[in-house]
Amino acid sequence: MKKLMITQEAGVATVLIKNPPVNILTIDLINELNEFILSLKDDRDTKVVVFKSFHQAFFIAHLDLNVINGTSGGQAASIEFNHLIANIKAMKQLSIAIVDGVARGGGNEFVMACDLAYGTENSAYAQPELYINIPTGGQGAVQFARRLGKGKALQALLTGADFTAQQAEALNIITQFVPKDQLDAFLAQLLAIIVGWEIRDIVMYKEIIAASIIDESAGTELELRYFLDRAKEEKTQTIIAAFLKHGGQTEREAKDMQGIFVDTASELSK
Amino acid sequence: MKKLMITQEAGVATVLIKNPPVNILTIDLINELNEFILSLKDDRDTKVVVFKSFHQAFFIAHLDLNVINGTSGGQAASIEFNHLIANIKAMKQLSIAIVDGVARGGGNEFVMACDLAYGTENSAYAQPELYINIPTGGQGAVQFARRLGKGKALQALLTGADFTAQQAEALNIITQFVPKDQLDAFLAQLLAIIVGWEIRDIVMYKEIIAASIIDESAGTELELRYFLDRAKEEKTQTIIAAFLKHGGQTEREAKDMQGIFVDTASELSK
Amino acid sequence: MKKLMITQEAGVATVLIKNPPVNILTIDLINELNEFILSLKDDRDTKVVVFKSFHQAFFIAHLDLNVINGTSGGQAASIEFNHLIANIKAMKQLSIAIVDGVARGGGNEFVMACDLAYGTENSAYAQPELYINIPTGGQGAVQFARRLGKGKALQALLTGADFTAQQAEALNIITQFVPKDQLDAFLAQLLAIIVGWEIRDIVMYKEIIAASIIDESAGTELELRYFLDRAKEEKTQTIIAAFLKHGGQTEREAKDMQGIFVDTASELSK
Repeated sequence: MKKLMITQEAGVATVLIKNPPVNILTIDLINELNEFILSLKDDRDTKVVVFKSFHQAFFIAHLDLNVINGTSGGQAASIEFNHLIANIKAMKQLSIAIVDGVARGGGNEFVMACDLAYGTENSAYAQPELYINIPTGGQGAVQFARRLGKGKALQALLTGADFTAQQAEALNIITQFVPKDQLDAFLAQLLAIIVGWEIRDIVMYKEIIAASIIDESAGTELELRYFLDRAKEEKTQTIIAAFLKHGGQTEREAKDMQGIFVDTASELSK
Repeated sequence: MKKLMITQEAGVATVLIKNPPVNILTIDLINELNEFILSLKDDRDTKVVVFKSFHQAFFIAHLDLNVINGTSGGQAASIEFNHLIANIKAMKQLSIAIVDGVARGGGNEFVMACDLAYGTENSAYAQPELYINIPTGGQGAVQFARRLGKGKALQALLTGADFTAQQAEALNIITQFVPKDQLDAFLAQLLAIIVGWEIRDIVMYKEIIAASIIDESAGTELELRYFLDRAKEEKTQTIIAAFLKHGGQTEREAKDMQGIFVDTASELSK
Repeated sequence: MKKLMITQEAGVATVLIKNPPVNILTIDLINELNEFILSLKDDRDTKVVVFKSFHQAFFIAHLDLNVINGTSGGQAASIEFNHLIANIKAMKQLSIAIVDGVARGGGNEFVMACDLAYGTENSAYAQPELYINIPTGGQGAVQFARRLGKGKALQALLTGADFTAQQAEALNIITQFVPKDQLDAFLAQLLAIIVGWEIRDIVMYKEIIAASIIDESAGTELELRYFLDRAKEEKTQTIIAAFLKHGGQTEREAKDMQGIFVDTASELSK
């Protein structure tokens, strides 16, 4: 792999995207990304994949315009890009986009395909495809419709205007705006919590959420089934015993729930 | 009933929840709540049910951890809690949660099951179930998915972090943040309007909303059917006549619509 | 036509609604609106329809209360109003409501039926139908349910309270709050972009959005089909060549994407 610099540590794979000059989604980059993501299917150690850009001003500029044509190669590349979006959404690992630059077109579609996305004051999000006579091709319009609602989605797609990270957070394009000077600490704190879970915990909540968005009743049934199964586990009993010992179900919960969790984890790690 | 202090006045039942030490959803409390809610099925006088907590710091802490296990009693209690959430959602009365303290886990699920929820600066909302190896079990993940969207729901479920009332309002977890010192006046004003309606008005709008969220076309048909039926009523004609007499369909509507409603009601009550 | 003053210029039809005293949706106005909207079906020149009010304080007050009754004429008029809402939503042109006054009941339903809606500090939005014993009849409750979510929709319908433009924007009732003194410039800028598109571009995005809101997978398939078809077009190749010539896929995109679009359009118009 040449365009992805991947480091893996303590359950977290960090993928640095480096495709000069401006991190265009060329077919080479798309293939490398797909290959890496599909390789995670049987990976039992990696819980989280963090996507970052090596470029100072761009997260991912957009899909390579050279593949947007009627040739069989161009159409195949466009479909591969479409698969990339589907593959990211199908990952069992938690996917996180750290957006500290421009993410337009396919770049923004990449961001929205990730489970979580955090953007800084340097980030920008847009779907300006109409300026080159095409619609979005990686669920840009689909996701805008579902997240922004009909009117705001239509306005965004017809103007192609950039959103700031704060606007993108308000419109559910990203999960949260995080100022750049707080980003490392924020991410470290988030990852410290998440690597504490099992990969099956992440999968469980992703499944319940996906089911619930399509059908509230189906989601409710799935959630209850998981709940009753998990309640039976030895692990659950052990944790609850420690939790109750350290102030669970007492006044301590009001002001210091995190302290109870910390004490519980500390006791269990003995 | 021992854990619920219920007062009924002018169409409003106020349910004060008192289950020391911290308003845990024990099986006794769950049973009392279910019994009371089911008793309202044929109640033609009660239009609104307001749930409040007797405890200063907790609304409802969460589900009793002692029932989260593999015993038949534990599993049955968990299912009863699940029924409680379904029963609240199926009430014909308008349900209102007044949240002036902590509502985590099953407590927050109780809040989200109510039609309306108002929270003060003392309130906190979270679904931290993963810390004890289980998912949410009363539609916490389901409701987060539908209200917050995929990304923010996943972040909230994986971190288990508390939301303030203002955050909860922005994310549709509650209806509105109301400062504690304005809460009584706010609630009195809201109830004064709502007890003016018939119970069938509340049922009608709940039905249209539920249908519309599942299927926009089905909601539209149901709404039109109700509209045409209601338009035929003698009561409608009487109100419209008074409304037109007091400035309906004139410039007065621009700045004093409420005044027209008041004058109309006043004339009709003669 | 007597209640609509229609001017058409450069692909934009501006419809000034003038139905004294307060722009009530009388059957005459409804019929004129329906007639005009249906006449646009085979209109290949009009891309955008902007609805404005001639009245200083009212956008559209609401449906004529004189038709809300059990007579066959009244019921027929109510159904015609319902058709109006459906007809607006089915337009192939982009519909825009400019709301600089009161829009309650059917007036607000008219606003929500439009693709885009911009409101000033003079605008107000409400569905207070219950005060005259009826529900909303033009998808007011349906749209509130889908845009505001269950709780906030129910509160809005049971209180009938006015929303300001800022509140309406936050709740997706309108697209955006625009201060009145910026409205003309804002609209001119928006229309300058939109009339640059073909009518089929507007239709395409409306279709993808409508499909996506009902079914994410169906929307995704439709989007990809459009994408692959459009990629093949000669027009697309010509634009991309010019775009790449003027700095597309280079660092220029970071700070001056709009400049690249302008230079591209300028070259193509030679």
